[in-house]
Amino acid sequence: MNYFSSDFKLGVLGGGQLGKMLLTETHKYDIHTSILDNSADAPCAQICDEFVQGDLMDFDTVVNFGKTVDVLTIEIEHVNVDALEHLEKIGKSVYPKSKDLRIIQNKGVQKTFYESNNIATSAFKKFDTIAELKASVENNEVTIPFVWKSTQFGYDGNGVKMVRAISDLENLTETECIAEELVNFKNELAVIVARNPNGDIATYPVVEMEFHPEANQVEYVICPARINDKVAEKAKNTALNVAKAFDFVGLLAVEMFQTQNDEILVNEVAPRTHNSGHYSIEASYTSQFEQHVRAILNLPLGNTDSKVAGIMVNLVGAEGYQGEVVYENMDKILAIDGVTPHIYGKKHTRPFRKMGHVTIVNENIEEARRVAEQVKNAIKVISK
Amino acid sequence: MNYFSSDFKLGVLGGGQLGKMLLTETHKYDIHTSILDNSADAPCAQICDEFVQGDLMDFDTVVNFGKTVDVLTIEIEHVNVDALEHLEKIGKSVYPKSKDLRIIQNKGVQKTFYESNNIATSAFKKFDTIAELKASVENNEVTIPFVWKSTQFGYDGNGVKMVRAISDLENLTETECIAEELVNFKNELAVIVARNPNGDIATYPVVEMEFHPEANQVEYVICPARINDKVAEKAKNTALNVAKAFDFVGLLAVEMFQTQNDEILVNEVAPRTHNSGHYSIEASYTSQFEQHVRAILNLPLGNTDSKVAGIMVNLVGAEGYQGEVVYENMDKILAIDGVTPHIYGKKHTRPFRKMGHVTIVNENIEEARRVAEQVKNAIKVISK
Repeated sequence: MNYFSSDFKLGVLGGGQLGKMLLTETHKYDIHTSILDNSADAPCAQICDEFVQGDLMDFDTVVNFGKTVDVLTIEIEHVNVDALEHLEKIGKSVYPKSKDLRIIQNKGVQKTFYESNNIATSAFKKFDTIAELKASVENNEVTIPFVWKSTQFGYDGNGVKMVRAISDLENLTETECIAEELVNFKNELAVIVARNPNGDIATYPVVEMEFHPEANQVEYVICPARINDKVAEKAKNTALNVAKAFDFVGLLAVEMFQTQNDEILVNEVAPRTHNSGHYSIEASYTSQFEQHVRAILNLPLGNTDSKVAGIMVNLVGAEGYQGEVVYENMDKILAIDGVTPHIYGKKHTRPFRKMGHVTIVNENIEEARRVAEQVKNAIKVISK
Repeated sequence: MNYFSSDFKLGVLGGGQLGKMLLTETHKYDIHTSILDNSADAPCAQICDEFVQGDLMDFDTVVNFGKTVDVLTIEIEHVNVDALEHLEKIGKSVYPKSKDLRIIQNKGVQKTFYESNNIATSAFKKFDTIAELKASVENNEVTIPFVWKSTQFGYDGNGVKMVRAISDLENLTETECIAEELVNFKNELAVIVARNPNGDIATYPVVEMEFHPEANQVEYVICPARINDKVAEKAKNTALNVAKAFDFVGLLAVEMFQTQNDEILVNEVAPRTHNSGHYSIEASYTSQFEQHVRAILNLPLGNTDSKVAGIMVNLVGAEGYQGEVVYENMDKILAIDGVTPHIYGKKHTRPFRKMGHVTIVNENIEEARRVAEQVKNAIKVISK
């Protein structure tokens, strides 16, 4: 198949920041790209070859869109999977596959999948209602503290809550959910696996999420993770096993815990390009977005090695600000060597909204870490 | 000024491949970008925020377009300079400045500028007509062989001819022209200088154009140039002197000859991002396109160092093929580590048309050079 400057059409479900960064690659290769998104002012709307506004969860909308393209992919997993399955049945290439998305979309089903494939993961229980969960807590079948997760539609911290006291049970949304054992981890790690329909497979280096000591929020994504080779090898193999269990095609971001005794437990996966791989745009020989294009089009996979160390800082809306966004001190961070801001194009900020990210690269990872802190302290996402 | 996700508008004259690669950066920063180009199917047309079709050489078209933006820049130098001067007079920021473009647009004026600023350049003579040139050759004021250049509108080898015999004089276009002494050079070098209105200035490493031994065509642009430090320093200083002589703002690509006795002679300049800087997308901490945005918006300039060695190969239409383009063996070159094709998005090929380029990066420049040859031999730009 000739993809380049041809009649070939790549379809993407979702037109947010991940889609926007993917477009950089499809522009580079001149691959015609059509995008479907719920919102007319999605970050991709103005800059893709074709934009269709429509409901990603609506069967007919997704089927009709899918019929207009040659290969269909996603940049968000909350899409109508029945539509994808239907498109596969009528012969469309859909990557990732609908069967994998179906498993991943539901966190209860996802956890069960790990168990039945002998992939180490934290203990959990599934509940249809909050009442069932409460009963289980009362019977001591579930012990506090634990992590509560809605089985579906969790995103950016939505649908995930720490339950530290009985009273926290009152603040949970009524929905099918799971209670996960709280893992006392040493590190949270992630590995991105790329695989094409041919079966060629590649892993990116293990990255580390560094948490703010007090706020318990991820502050930095660091590549390579500052862990020993044995743990890195274990994490990489676990991620490969997960990708193979799914028989996955596309990009799979595998989030894992490194426990206090260096066990690796799979936390969850994302069937797409991922926040933990943004560093790759500046640091890697092949960015995760280019790799995604290569994987789903069955092209040879690119080199996943890094040219330099990379650290990513998320740009989220500051507390107390809502409205038209202003990026304070951009000139200050641009004056520092190896600092690249990515602004996603959302015109309005609100507290904790993901507005962009900044990548810091340096030959020396300690220097990169020092600069990352400088960037984090300088830049502020506020409103007019 | 707040450029990011704001009402600020950047205007660009020209919507070709240089504009397209610039858009990658304005997308990254979410800077609203409007583009004016002669052709409705220019590579930028579908992927910029606003596209206007219109004649870049028409005074009113350029003035009216310029009035709708906050800062105006170019990606091609063949634009109406009177319009830019008018826009400056009514208070618009135009970078590069009209006075510099006026000098650079005319190769006779450009050469005179070097002479009057004590910048070493090859000897030349200017002629209003071909008849005058012929008379000069007959009188032995100009000696064959020499390089003939049309003073205006030369592009991609158009308007430049080697005159090796009297008979070659018959094939020249009737136009104002210059005859340049043929330089017996050891190397053709280039340095890109970036400067912002604040006066901050930065130079990229010296690159080397490697010529095909028989075809006398540039085959590879190599960064860093394989020259000694003393010559590199001399080339860098020459480029800085040229930028300072112009009091330049924006990106200035300075092409130079290294003579047999290691003198540096300025050949010509381009007042914009340049083919000799394409390697920077993959190899440098700051790509030339990001640097251009930083320079014209008076932001701090980025680090011009390289992460790895970079080599660029132009993708031009193969001889004997004309029509809808096909890139043969793309899968073969994508299978090689550190190889990144850039496809400009021209749907039709013709012999020698610039259709794209391929960057090869590697920690080791000799390995990069080996791969570059492999790429050059494998890929072919043909038609259906």
